[in-house]
Amino acid sequence: MIYLDNAATARPDAECYKAAEKYILTDYYNPSALYAGGYNLHLELKKAGRNILSLVADDENYSIIFTSCGTEADNQAIFCGGRRGNVVTTGGEHSAVFSSATELSRRGIEVRFAGLNPDGSVNEEELLKLVDEKTSLVSVIHVNNETGAVNDIATISEAVKNKNPRTLFHSDGVQAFGKLNFRLTENIDMYSVSAHKIGGIKGCGALIKRKKLIINPYIYGGGQERNLRSGTENVFGIKFFELAALKRFKHLKENFAHVSELNELLREKLDKSLFKIISSYNSSPYILTVAADGVRGETILHEADDRGLIIGTGSACSSNEKKRYSRVILSCGISESMADGILRISFSHENTVEEISSAAEILNSIVKKRKDKMA
Amino acid sequence: MIYLDNAATARPDAECYKAAEKYILTDYYNPSALYAGGYNLHLELKKAGRNILSLVADDENYSIIFTSCGTEADNQAIFCGGRRGNVVTTGGEHSAVFSSATELSRRGIEVRFAGLNPDGSVNEEELLKLVDEKTSLVSVIHVNNETGAVNDIATISEAVKNKNPRTLFHSDGVQAFGKLNFRLTENIDMYSVSAHKIGGIKGCGALIKRKKLIINPYIYGGGQERNLRSGTENVFGIKFFELAALKRFKHLKENFAHVSELNELLREKLDKSLFKIISSYNSSPYILTVAADGVRGETILHEADDRGLIIGTGSACSSNEKKRYSRVILSCGISESMADGILRISFSHENTVEEISSAAEILNSIVKKRKDKMA
Repeated sequence: MIYLDNAATARPDAECYKAAEKYILTDYYNPSALYAGGYNLHLELKKAGRNILSLVADDENYSIIFTSCGTEADNQAIFCGGRRGNVVTTGGEHSAVFSSATELSRRGIEVRFAGLNPDGSVNEEELLKLVDEKTSLVSVIHVNNETGAVNDIATISEAVKNKNPRTLFHSDGVQAFGKLNFRLTENIDMYSVSAHKIGGIKGCGALIKRKKLIINPYIYGGGQERNLRSGTENVFGIKFFELAALKRFKHLKENFAHVSELNELLREKLDKSLFKIISSYNSSPYILTVAADGVRGETILHEADDRGLIIGTGSACSSNEKKRYSRVILSCGISESMADGILRISFSHENTVEEISSAAEILNSIVKKRKDKMA
Repeated sequence: MIYLDNAATARPDAECYKAAEKYILTDYYNPSALYAGGYNLHLELKKAGRNILSLVADDENYSIIFTSCGTEADNQAIFCGGRRGNVVTTGGEHSAVFSSATELSRRGIEVRFAGLNPDGSVNEEELLKLVDEKTSLVSVIHVNNETGAVNDIATISEAVKNKNPRTLFHSDGVQAFGKLNFRLTENIDMYSVSAHKIGGIKGCGALIKRKKLIINPYIYGGGQERNLRSGTENVFGIKFFELAALKRFKHLKENFAHVSELNELLREKLDKSLFKIISSYNSSPYILTVAADGVRGETILHEADDRGLIIGTGSACSSNEKKRYSRVILSCGISESMADGILRISFSHENTVEEISSAAEILNSIVKKRKDKMA
């Protein structure tokens, strides 16, 4: 089985899993408990927070709130950050931000969506025009989960603050964290990350935030996470996340180079008379989105699955929305017939050159056969 | 090590864990994905929901929403259920309900708290007086997490509906689920449960709700959980929860009998000149709360820990609140000097008669020595 849907979820790292297993089998105490077993876990969680934070930010200026997933981190950022005036975001956001922003607008906050460039990155000029003195929050995805387009959030956040220094800047970093060589710059107030996209487990994420930023909790209760996220801490998930993140960042550059090579190879091997490449060369190499004009992506996905190749069609998350066309893909200016044939191929450092060659052959042959039949 | 803090968190069931491990190692797909591997997990999650639901409710009238913990389930119930008029709850709620209700009142919803009986159960008469035509939500904890007091939520919910049929009734069932022989009756609209209290893993819970009840999601995004809780599903956590719940319910009656015996034994063996028993005989046998007048609970906890006995002082969750006295214990009418010496001893079916005898000896000797020193 060739697994090329790593942007939906990555295979959990077996080595990190084995190292974290003790938090299920023996170190199972409640980290809020006062006895040694509980208190030691409290210290372990603090260490996990420091370690993960240090990978993308300096811990003098940033702190971390563990959440149950990237989606919850986005919800906290949007609902607790966007409380007044207007909120500016983009048409290229993951559903976690997009649906939260839509809900905000139902609650009476004006939400403004900036349009996208053809590769799925935000039109920066348009975005900046939407920011005014009443903008409480701007949220711009770091790496678009459907096309891999990279938004230059360091520059965008600086431009936003130049227009309104009181505006909070948030970015969903789920598809960037552990993949791109990047550190948070001073104008980024909040940044969402997720464990299961980088070899950790589903059910664990975090919101990284500037220390000075005071925001409300989104989940209220016993006051865990310095009163910013209640609920008994997911010790196993968090320690697994820590180990997976440390490992991914340790090999970040070599993984990036390897995945870039795989991406390049697939771009080259896919038959250009059958596939249109949507992702630009500036996109994250971890995601390659292509369209087979006139053949449904879902059909290709199932045939590929039968032949031992796993790929995605757009975002796994939006497959729940039961909409035929991806709003993000349409926002890139792609026609409906093309949007119907969208495939998202997403890589891991574990994929091999041989797998990519086979994948290209399988995809070319499926689409060619379909097109020949139609002709 | 004798572990008697099972109400804070239970030891994850090793057998269920091994059976659920494949959802980390091999069946790691995103359950929203359209290929066979993803779709099969989607079916597995549906099965888990049906299986867990069937343990406490009929699936014709109830459905289940998986959440990241009991606390999140409580937040969804309180914030999405208590949107208008007033909300009635009790002084004996877990922080997840209490703090959410307090936040609601900051947002302008009137919140009314009913007082407690000496054992920690709610004063039903007082509660009913607080319910009126404007009450949108009533929330009453099923088993009090600090004293083990059982509220008769079937009767209370019926009385609430008799006063106002449009009022929603929610109960936090975290300390009852998998422990008491109980099924949801028709007037209970929402019920929160948690995995890690019954041998599952931290980071997984659920809100059980009447099918006909339309409530908003609390976490917005990709539309997972039939659009009622977004975020990639915690497949491992949910399947582990399913297995642990099935096992606990299978042995529910024998576990209950065994734990009742342990509770009885500890009540008997604790020196009544040193300890006052707070939990009534009607309480859940899984929790026995006692007070050592004049000796701090925290001191006893640490000395017991040194001697291989793990117990709690009140709720582990409220230990984050950094308050010296538990609000629940004080609401039971217990004096501050007594509240200072509160110990929560909570059992599991895995505990043995020998462990309980040793625990009683250790506790008696610690408090006796302290008192002798003071005398």
